[in-house]
Order: sequence, then structure tokens, then C-alpha cells
Amino acid sequence: MPKHYVGIDLGGTYIKFITLSQSLKPGKVLQLDTPRGADAVIDQMVAGARQVIELNKLTRRDIGGVGVGAPGPLDFKRGVVIEMPNLPGFRNVAIRDRVARGLGIRAVLENDANAAGFGEYLCGAGKHKGDMVLLTLGTGVGGGIVIDGKVIRGAHGVGAELGHLIIVPGGEPCGCGQRGCLERYCSATFIAQRAGKLVKSGRRSTLKKVLDAGEPITTKAINQARKAGDKLAAEVWDQGAYYLALGCVNICRVLDPDRIVLAGGLVNAGRDLMAPVLRHFKALHWKLATPKTEIAIATLGSDAGVIGAAGVAWYSRNV
Amino acid sequence: MPKHYVGIDLGGTYIKFITLSQSLKPGKVLQLDTPRGADAVIDQMVAGARQVIELNKLTRRDIGGVGVGAPGPLDFKRGVVIEMPNLPGFRNVAIRDRVARGLGIRAVLENDANAAGFGEYLCGAGKHKGDMVLLTLGTGVGGGIVIDGKVIRGAHGVGAELGHLIIVPGGEPCGCGQRGCLERYCSATFIAQRAGKLVKSGRRSTLKKVLDAGEPITTKAINQARKAGDKLAAEVWDQGAYYLALGCVNICRVLDPDRIVLAGGLVNAGRDLMAPVLRHFKALHWKLATPKTEIAIATLGSDAGVIGAAGVAWYSRNV
Repeated sequence: MPKHYVGIDLGGTYIKFITLSQSLKPGKVLQLDTPRGADAVIDQMVAGARQVIELNKLTRRDIGGVGVGAPGPLDFKRGVVIEMPNLPGFRNVAIRDRVARGLGIRAVLENDANAAGFGEYLCGAGKHKGDMVLLTLGTGVGGGIVIDGKVIRGAHGVGAELGHLIIVPGGEPCGCGQRGCLERYCSATFIAQRAGKLVKSGRRSTLKKVLDAGEPITTKAINQARKAGDKLAAEVWDQGAYYLALGCVNICRVLDPDRIVLAGGLVNAGRDLMAPVLRHFKALHWKLATPKTEIAIATLGSDAGVIGAAGVAWYSRNV
Repeated sequence: MPKHYVGIDLGGTYIKFITLSQSLKPGKVLQLDTPRGADAVIDQMVAGARQVIELNKLTRRDIGGVGVGAPGPLDFKRGVVIEMPNLPGFRNVAIRDRVARGLGIRAVLENDANAAGFGEYLCGAGKHKGDMVLLTLGTGVGGGIVIDGKVIRGAHGVGAELGHLIIVPGGEPCGCGQRGCLERYCSATFIAQRAGKLVKSGRRSTLKKVLDAGEPITTKAINQARKAGDKLAAEVWDQGAYYLALGCVNICRVLDPDRIVLAGGLVNAGRDLMAPVLRHFKALHWKLATPKTEIAIATLGSDAGVIGAAGVAWYSRNV
């Protein structure tokens, strides 16, 4: 009787591997470089899966399934990665079936953001109960939705693209072709960019020293400057928190989840981020009832995706 | 073996009743006035349910369950209407159990907007397949979400409140206590109000004749003026369509449904509404993929709610 599941998280730089027990206990993580070329990537995934099974003192017979998390766009029905923006030439690769064949174990494919959401739901801040929405605040803003214990993929596989909620009609242009997307107002990259623009435009700020030293402004630097009394840094930080809170209110209006979980580099700021987000959330939220949706910080860090990938295999164990 | 279900749609002015066969064929509708006082309302609901069973040549033994649709806020677990804004004194009424006791048939309670969404899903424009979102454009904007054949209520019973998506940060104040809610930009009432304000502020428009005659401006009058070449009417109409389309894009980003179904008085305009909505939807939608979510007009009219109420009883037949 198989009692473990393998998760594989395919990224542009690394491929991560993990095992997850039937009782949802994650094993040791293995990380390998992502090679160039589709064939090499598939070989690395198969080899890495074998390695992580061994690393966790298991054998192939202990494994009930493999879950693969990959960046979209995906064709879920056929188990195909249509394109991977960070891996040139990785197009229309039947990743699910090739990994399954290589290992002799059934495999399932999931979008990486959905997988991270499912990981936090099963083993992290989602506590494996209630409805949960994950917002990952990094270069962009990613989303994952779990309702009744199930990942919401959307009818065409593009649901939970929460970074592309339009929150400012006619606002900042986004790479997706829309204007005013949430991620243009509260991703770590955008918040840093906005501070940089304002400093370059001549606004007085201690952040100018960072630019003068030829270094990029980071959200960490902004938060530090803010705490040291820098007005511009405080303004930019607060604005990011405001729009993030606005996104959270909109998630409540559609899904009314038990929890919204925040992840990604920006949440390293901890209370410095949460305090203004919760303040704006309360102020923006309707007054018909007090907000019941909790906003919490993710607990799995960058392992959420690989744990969730294994979780998807665990979830579909009887399918 | 019961083969039919009764639906009851409780409104501030009327109570509607219907039967729905196991094969999802709606029977004849009965409409009674809503009396004052909780006891009288419950009595009317029980009496009307008996009448509609008879009207459709059925007996109590043919009925597998009763679904009650009521305006929120509701306590789903206890089957209680916490308050009915349009029925003063109707507070904390255990409507589900009192109707069930009165009829000797098990009953389920559903929010009226969710019920309308489920009705369109089962028997209307949702075609009983795929994921569907209903937007009702009336005094306000109501929402109903059906994913995998199931109504999304939210963890605290306030999901699918799509009229209160914030689409303009810091925008028009809404009765709910938020600012910039979708319904303040595209409900029939708001579109008409906006035209009235602009005319009163001195903007030149043929709609002034309506106001001068002491009549209120309606969306029907705006559409007629627009078609006759009135610029202000065209501007207001197009703006309503723009924000409605923006709401549809945001629904796609969260849920990516198969269909968004538009209902309520405003959709009587048919193609006059749909043409600009679809144009704006295409323009606002991201360019990563062509829009696959269909936008369609509801087909059940004001019976969606009562059909959906019966549908909820049908859905939960084995629970």
C-alpha cells in the first residue's frame, strides 16, 4: 500500500523535489539546477524524483503518485506545458506523461501558483481546514484558491490570476495587456520601482543614497528607510499596503474565504507589512458586518509549491 | 418515490412558489402578497406551498423537499433569516424549520441571489453545465456563483457579493460603507441617477424633457435618447457598459467561469447593452489569451430565484 507522494516544482532556475506522507508530513527537500532543453529537463525531473525517494529512505513501491507544479500556461487535460517564459524552447511539452513514463508512477500536473496555494492549505497557514486564498507578493502577484478542499483552476485553466484583478480603471499598464492590475500596485518589484521613480524625479529621500551607490532599491530598503523616518519611503510602503488590502477586500466580496494567506519576499517584513494591511483592510471593508476573513502570513516559505505539488498527487490518489 | 421539489422565493412585496420536477422541468408559478409580520409570512409560505403543489396536480407525497430563497443576511447553519431590510420586524426568524414543520417536508434555506444564480445554472442561460456567474443589474448589483455544480456561499455566508467589488479606489460612496463599489457604476438605478445628476448640472440633453415633466429618468429612457443621437445619454450608457465589462474581467481573473450571465431590468435592452459590454470586455481583457468566458443574457427573467430555490432542494435531495 503506497503511503507517500512525490512533489516536483519546476522553476526557471531550480527544480525542487519532496516527498509527502499520507498523513501530510513533508520529507526532506532536494534542489537541482534546471538544465536547458526539454529533454534534459524531463531527465532531470525523473532522476531527481528517484533521488528524493532514496533521500527519504523510501522505495518506488511506497509512492502513490507524483505531482508536478509548473508555471503556466498549461493544458490540464493533456498534461502539457504550453510555454515556459523562463525556459526558451520549452514548448508544448507533455510533461505529465513523460515524467509518469520515466518513473513508472502516475503523475498529475498543476499550475505552480495553485500548487503553492494548496501547499499552504494542506501543511501551512491554511491549517487544512476552511476556504483559503493565497497571494504571493514577489516579482508579480500570484494567486491560489482552495474551496472545499479543492483547487479552483477555472474553466479554461486561468482562474486565480489574482495579480491581474483590475483595481485602478485605466491605471498603470501591465505586461498582460491590461491596465491597473493589482500586481502593478503591490508586488515587491512594483513597490520598489515606484520608490525609485519618485527618488529619480527629485523627491527628497534617504533612498537616494542607495541609487547613488548604483544599487537597486528593494522593499527591504524602503521599510528600513521608513522606520528611520523617511517620508517618501513611508508613503510608498503605505500605498502598497493600501492596494494589497483593497485586493483582499475584493477577494472577500467574491469568495468570502476563511483565510487570505500572504506569501513571497514582501512578507519577510512581518508585522511591518501586516499592521498597515490590516488597518487599511478594516477601513476599506464594508460596514454591513465586521470582517471575519483572517489575513495571515504563509508559513512554508519557498517550499509551498513543492509541498503542494505532492499534495495534488495525494488529493487525486483515488482518481 | 418523490419526484418533485417546491421552491419559495420570499421578497418584500411578493412571495413566489413553483414546483420543479426531478428532470428539472419547472411547473406553474404562484404569486401571493407578502403579509406583514413574521407569523403571517410563515403561514403564507406554508399555505402557498400547499396551493402550488395542488396547482401543479401533485400531492405532498410527490414532494422531496422545499427550498426557500430569502434576502440576506442569513444564518445558513441554523436556517435563520437574521434580518430582512424590506420587512420591518422580520428578525431572527427560523424560517427553514418553521416552513418544514408547517408542511411536514424537509426544507433548505438559500440566499435569494445565490438561488437566482443556481436557477439560471440549472434551467436557464447556464445550461446546467460548466461554471457560471450571475450578475443581476437592478437597484443594486447582485451576484451568484456556481462552481462544479455547487453554489459558492463563502465561509461566512457573504460570498458572491459581486456588486460590492471595489472597482474605483476612493470612488462613489456606497450604502455598504465602502467606496467605489461596482454597483455604484453599473446598476440600473445608478446609471439613471448619474444621467439625472448630469442633466441637473446643466449638461445639454433631450433627457431634460423627462425631468421637466416631473418623471424620473430610467435606463430605458437613456437608451432611447442615446439611439436618437443624444450625446450625454450615449456617454452615460457607455460608461455603465464599461464598468460592467470591467467587473466581468475581474470575475474572469478570480474564477475564469464558462459563462457570465447578466440579469435584471437592464438586460431588457438586449443587444443595445451587450454590444458595448462585449466591446469593452474585449478591450479591457488581458492579451495573454483570447477571452473564452462567454457573456450571455439570462433566460428565466424574474422566475430565476424561485426556480433556483426549488433547485437547491433538488440538489440537496440526498443530503
